Amino acid sequence: MSAARADRVQAALRERELDAMLVTHLVNVRWLTGFTGTNAVAVVGADGARTFLTDFRYVERAEAEVDGFDRERGGRDLLGDAAKELTGRVGFEDAHLPVRTWGRLSESVGDGVELVGTGSMLEDLRAVKEPAELDAIRAAAQLADEIVNAVVVDPGLAGRTERDVSRAIQRELRERDAEPSFPPIIAAAEHGALPHAEPRDVEIPRDTLVVVDFGALLDGYCSDCTRTFATGDIADGAREVYELVERAQAASLDAVRPGAECKAVDAVARTMITEAGHGEHFGHGLGHGVGLEVHEEPRLTANAEGELVPGNVVSVEPGVYLAGDVGVRIEDLVAVTPDGYEVFSSLPKALTRV
Amino acid sequence: MSAARADRVQAALRERELDAMLVTHLVNVRWLTGFTGTNAVAVVGADGARTFLTDFRYVERAEAEVDGFDRERGGRDLLGDAAKELTGRVGFEDAHLPVRTWGRLSESVGDGVELVGTGSMLEDLRAVKEPAELDAIRAAAQLADEIVNAVVVDPGLAGRTERDVSRAIQRELRERDAEPSFPPIIAAAEHGALPHAEPRDVEIPRDTLVVVDFGALLDGYCSDCTRTFATGDIADGAREVYELVERAQAASLDAVRPGAECKAVDAVARTMITEAGHGEHFGHGLGHGVGLEVHEEPRLTANAEGELVPGNVVSVEPGVYLAGDVGVRIEDLVAVTPDGYEVFSSLPKALTRV
Repeated sequence: MSAARADRVQAALRERELDAMLVTHLVNVRWLTGFTGTNAVAVVGADGARTFLTDFRYVERAEAEVDGFDRERGGRDLLGDAAKELTGRVGFEDAHLPVRTWGRLSESVGDGVELVGTGSMLEDLRAVKEPAELDAIRAAAQLADEIVNAVVVDPGLAGRTERDVSRAIQRELRERDAEPSFPPIIAAAEHGALPHAEPRDVEIPRDTLVVVDFGALLDGYCSDCTRTFATGDIADGAREVYELVERAQAASLDAVRPGAECKAVDAVARTMITEAGHGEHFGHGLGHGVGLEVHEEPRLTANAEGELVPGNVVSVEPGVYLAGDVGVRIEDLVAVTPDGYEVFSSLPKALTRV
Repeated sequence: MSAARADRVQAALRERELDAMLVTHLVNVRWLTGFTGTNAVAVVGADGARTFLTDFRYVERAEAEVDGFDRERGGRDLLGDAAKELTGRVGFEDAHLPVRTWGRLSESVGDGVELVGTGSMLEDLRAVKEPAELDAIRAAAQLADEIVNAVVVDPGLAGRTERDVSRAIQRELRERDAEPSFPPIIAAAEHGALPHAEPRDVEIPRDTLVVVDFGALLDGYCSDCTRTFATGDIADGAREVYELVERAQAASLDAVRPGAECKAVDAVARTMITEAGHGEHFGHGLGHGVGLEVHEEPRLTANAEGELVPGNVVSVEPGVYLAGDVGVRIEDLVAVTPDGYEVFSSLPKALTRV
């Protein structure tokens, strides 16, 4: 696994005419090497050199987790230790490395070393998932769906507090060796109009809409899914908004395929919602990549550059938020396949009464 | 609350001859303003100006949480929005701000603005807690102690798996509206010799030592406490190590007072452990500050600069780790008071059989 990823980094180095890449951002170190501890640095050379440094606390863990790299035990200053081995044009993660650490690094490297910021190079590689990663994300999504059925659909929502539902979801996740991939959102009625609502200690009423948005973090990989449920009969206006979002979600999902421009996929939903008079009520992007992190590359937004390729995993989640009234969001997690897409979320999208 | 903290930042600016401080690191933004969301920037001027920027998602939350600042709604580039208002010598958090973000910021500020890295300025201010913060940390420590008694001492450890115990601790924390302040460590026998052991799916045996190290995160503040329990009769060698660590912990605790050099407090335990022949088996610092983060300033290590002042909260946690054999760590969380110290951890330190 890590050998293939290091090969991809090595190929990217050659394209950029870099002699080596210094990987410091922990989630990128994990992706590259498999290491799950909290202090490590990895170096990939254009010549095939592969070095992994961690401190005494993690030596045993690294032995168990990290293959295909020369493992070294560093001291208090891992970056300083790594710096000694660098030569030529060396890529570094300028999107993450703090200014102060970069200053120290610049002093530690030898004469003639040029440090070159690589922006989102590693994140762009991470955005194209391997089959085993797709399996991991699919499993996380399936687990989350099972929990929605067990904790939301079967027992219903009316009369429970948002916080109790959130707690029950988290409890179920942990009983199955998972974690929430972000704090669950359970937002009823007008509270659903806040895209990042925090669960409240108030009872969910009957005859309203409830946004339920959460994901599982299982074996290192995240899922993300939203459904908006009805706790009884809802007003015609709320139903119209629901149906608009449902149509926009289905249409934008159908735009997902290799070669589709990220901003064009966003535009499918955005245009439909804008034409229905709710453009200003859809204040976030259509979706985002999901993998080791719950928000990663690629982004499906109005300004996003680039296009989808097979192996991308993205959320497709339009929403309409009417302040003080109601909010609706419907979100699937999908993988881009050679022919189109595979939806990881199995829950129905027609309005479900719970 | 936030007004007093902004006053302290303002005083620090005057000392450093800075015109303003740009606060971007979220935990520092939280400390300064009370804001708990995930996107915000704050500016404190030496002239008394106080500006807080967040995006549309968090406008309502900021209204509820942030006092004493002019609240502004920023766009997609909060830092760019803040940059427009900066003049003169402006401090920024170079220990946290990524190189790339700093580059953009440098381009966004007006002519004549000088960006000056302030290192750990905010962290140093955070290291001196206010009474309300001490109350919060005390409450977190008390909660963690109650959970140790309920989950570890009363039911005992032998026959349960490390992971089950860890799960039970986390469940108890969450039922009381808290979270773990870091992943709990439950490490029996030779596994206890790994200072950062991960709980395993193996049964804890009788007649061994078990390191139990965890903390509560309650109302934003962390606690941290370790006890090493016996599951029956233990070997004389293990008991000797326990008693050495117990004595070293008590002695270093007694060195905690205002004016004590951080490295001198570390040296008290380190000298005793070294003289007993275990210097190389105590491979970490004696302690660290605890507050909004579970590892913060000040540090009690062999190389630490500075001295303790009233309001510091530190862990005091010597350990001896014999690879393949046994590990012992005993940790209290203590506040530095005008006269000495207050121990927040209430659990007994004599070897407890569970």
